[in-house]
Amino acid sequence: MSYKKFLPLVVALLSGHVAAHNHDSITDKAVQLREQALNHSDPYGIVESLTVEVGHRLPGTKNDERAVEWAVKKLKSFGFDKVYTEDVDIPVWHRGVEKAEITFPYPQKLVITALGGSVPTPKDGITASVVRFDSFDALKKAKKGSLKGKIAFVDELTPKHREGNGYGKNSVIRRTSASIAADKGAIGVVIRSIGTSKNRFAHTGQMSYAKGSKKIPIGALSSPDANLLATMLKKAGHVKLSMTLATEILPAGKSANVIAEIKGREKPEEVIILGAHLDSWDLGTGALDDGAGVGIVSEAARLIAAMPQKPRRTIRLVLWAAEEIGLVGSKQYVREHMAELKNIKLVSESDFGGSNIFRFDSNFASSDLHFVDNVMKVLAPLGIEKGNNTAGGGPDSWPFRMKGVPVFSLRQNGIDYFDYHHTPNDTLDKLDPKQMQQNVAAWAAVIYMAAESDVEFSHLPVKQ
Amino acid sequence: MSYKKFLPLVVALLSGHVAAHNHDSITDKAVQLREQALNHSDPYGIVESLTVEVGHRLPGTKNDERAVEWAVKKLKSFGFDKVYTEDVDIPVWHRGVEKAEITFPYPQKLVITALGGSVPTPKDGITASVVRFDSFDALKKAKKGSLKGKIAFVDELTPKHREGNGYGKNSVIRRTSASIAADKGAIGVVIRSIGTSKNRFAHTGQMSYAKGSKKIPIGALSSPDANLLATMLKKAGHVKLSMTLATEILPAGKSANVIAEIKGREKPEEVIILGAHLDSWDLGTGALDDGAGVGIVSEAARLIAAMPQKPRRTIRLVLWAAEEIGLVGSKQYVREHMAELKNIKLVSESDFGGSNIFRFDSNFASSDLHFVDNVMKVLAPLGIEKGNNTAGGGPDSWPFRMKGVPVFSLRQNGIDYFDYHHTPNDTLDKLDPKQMQQNVAAWAAVIYMAAESDVEFSHLPVKQ
Repeated sequence: MSYKKFLPLVVALLSGHVAAHNHDSITDKAVQLREQALNHSDPYGIVESLTVEVGHRLPGTKNDERAVEWAVKKLKSFGFDKVYTEDVDIPVWHRGVEKAEITFPYPQKLVITALGGSVPTPKDGITASVVRFDSFDALKKAKKGSLKGKIAFVDELTPKHREGNGYGKNSVIRRTSASIAADKGAIGVVIRSIGTSKNRFAHTGQMSYAKGSKKIPIGALSSPDANLLATMLKKAGHVKLSMTLATEILPAGKSANVIAEIKGREKPEEVIILGAHLDSWDLGTGALDDGAGVGIVSEAARLIAAMPQKPRRTIRLVLWAAEEIGLVGSKQYVREHMAELKNIKLVSESDFGGSNIFRFDSNFASSDLHFVDNVMKVLAPLGIEKGNNTAGGGPDSWPFRMKGVPVFSLRQNGIDYFDYHHTPNDTLDKLDPKQMQQNVAAWAAVIYMAAESDVEFSHLPVKQ
Repeated sequence: MSYKKFLPLVVALLSGHVAAHNHDSITDKAVQLREQALNHSDPYGIVESLTVEVGHRLPGTKNDERAVEWAVKKLKSFGFDKVYTEDVDIPVWHRGVEKAEITFPYPQKLVITALGGSVPTPKDGITASVVRFDSFDALKKAKKGSLKGKIAFVDELTPKHREGNGYGKNSVIRRTSASIAADKGAIGVVIRSIGTSKNRFAHTGQMSYAKGSKKIPIGALSSPDANLLATMLKKAGHVKLSMTLATEILPAGKSANVIAEIKGREKPEEVIILGAHLDSWDLGTGALDDGAGVGIVSEAARLIAAMPQKPRRTIRLVLWAAEEIGLVGSKQYVREHMAELKNIKLVSESDFGGSNIFRFDSNFASSDLHFVDNVMKVLAPLGIEKGNNTAGGGPDSWPFRMKGVPVFSLRQNGIDYFDYHHTPNDTLDKLDPKQMQQNVAAWAAVIYMAAESDVEFSHLPVKQ
């Protein structure tokens, strides 16, 4: 055998060795990042700064503007290559006074909150008899005209689940009950809050009206108040409710996606996006939703930016605008970045509070699944297990995934998340700094490895 | 030996046997009551009725009047020998609008509630710089004049404890901070709620002004809002707070103690009093404080009233008026029943929620302590242990104890009680029907045994 015959094998072995060495080096650096995050990151401090210095961040409010200023200033202090904003056009809705009381037979005040997007009641409110439905299905089955002049009460429980499945299933009640009830003649709707706590907080959240349906006001009652109303109906048969929701639907306004970049040293045009949303509902201070995400991904990106050698691909941190009112910031981003989309390799968002990550789910082409095994070497010591390949990637990643961009999800323990979500009780004290550091560790490792690796991250079929 | 020599011994043995037999019979009947309570009592149903059909019961409101009507009707349906009311003269205070916000440097709304008895702020509120004290002691040590024109912020944590010791220690902060701060020049006070939960509810409760001090408004912040204010002060140094408390101090009014009796079959003039207070604060529906007590003692008395043979002494169930605003109903009762007081053998109140009883404490003359050993035979199987002889007997028993009447306390697990107490979150869903039945079992047994036995229950030295 001549030497030449062996050459391809030798080259293959050598390159294999080099690749393996290179790969080890990536893993080693990811492990270093992970350990640094576990011991020296401060995602909680970022959320403290945001919730104390800004507070809530309802799109279209002065607070939302202050949040954008806060984010630009904060990210500029983190050593990124560039920090900038991109305007986002938003619908503007304000809450105003909200109150409800049972007026007959046993007068009692109830804790209610308007759902985002709801039209107001007349100034003096509406008062009407209540018709209760023990499930969303029962509401849908009610006969046309059967709710004429009534207030519909949709009283379905939302169960607790580590991955928030109860919310996933029940948020449709919040989003669509107004038009369904209006089509049957109702003049208003109250729902049992789509939440999992027994505390006396009403959970807000976005709703919308179906085309052609009459727009009627809708609010959510706290769990104890839904219980009270249900029990009174059972005891008395006939109950009258009065509610005033002084919501305002205002002219369209502006917000902004806040963006920071670590420019890739070899393939700057290829982009890995990690995000969280900067906006929040106005009842709490948005510490869990999504201050926690802002803290986690900002710290992860900061740690990567501080590495002696920048990764090969560009890392783009985006703090999305107006997620709560319909993924407005990410949808506009995708529309405006269509030309660049083929170079967006991977997208993910942290938007499920600050508790420990327990699983890594991907949504990759099968040819890229070996990346999962690589990252698992770094994630497993964090108590994170390998998951499925049907990840959603977080709300603001979905407009990307629709267009074929691969996504991943670092799944967090959400057993308590819907206890606080969209209520006045979404405040800083609900976060655990140690668990947030575990999140930063996982995010920093995955994002770094994706940006440094030569995995293709092939785009997936577009969804309709 | 003649027969006569043995006679005294025989008599002693025989009477001993009879006494033992009689005693066994009392114990047997107490055990039967206990088992009936565990399996067939419905204290939760009473609280459900009260909280659904009436709701809160702030003294001097229409709801308080409705509660008295509700109680008379409910107790009349329970088969007592007599149900009646005795008028109580009460001071009347209404809450009105309450709001607070940080106006500088980072505007944010805070959750606040006025303390009962607080004077109002001017109509447009007060706005002033905040001076924080990390403890009540620190406030007391502040120099005269040092708070001139300021709002004092007393930021002491209340720890959790099974027996509520944290509240016991810290309620003085709520009761007295206004005058202490006013004497140093403050124009208003906010305190961290005297409560143990991290939920965003402010805890109300009664305060009073020291004679000669300027009356300044005082409110309590929820725990997350106290954290926010403290952190902002730490970050910014100087914080301005605006607060509006539109409280009303109205002309004196009337409420009523609601009383039901089981007339003693042998010694009707000797009375055992068991009680709970009917009034509540106005933020929640007063399910734990003190709907639970109303349900527990009413069911205990109902079970005794349903026995084929009434106990020897009279049992008097009293649902006290206006406990929250200063034990007003029980104090007036003692004043008006001084002539009868020597015949009041024993008093106790259930006023610590609805969780399991874990201990029986007495406050008896030493000659009566054998009664404790007797009741312990019936209580021990309920998981109740023998306690000390320094019982307080519950708030409304204290005016009796002051005059020398023996009291006892069936101590409940209060680890969560101050999570809900005096907040909007004091609602029915926080109660566990099974644990309330355990309470009824213990109360029925103790009250029956006290009323049937020949234990003297000698009065104790009067307290000053």
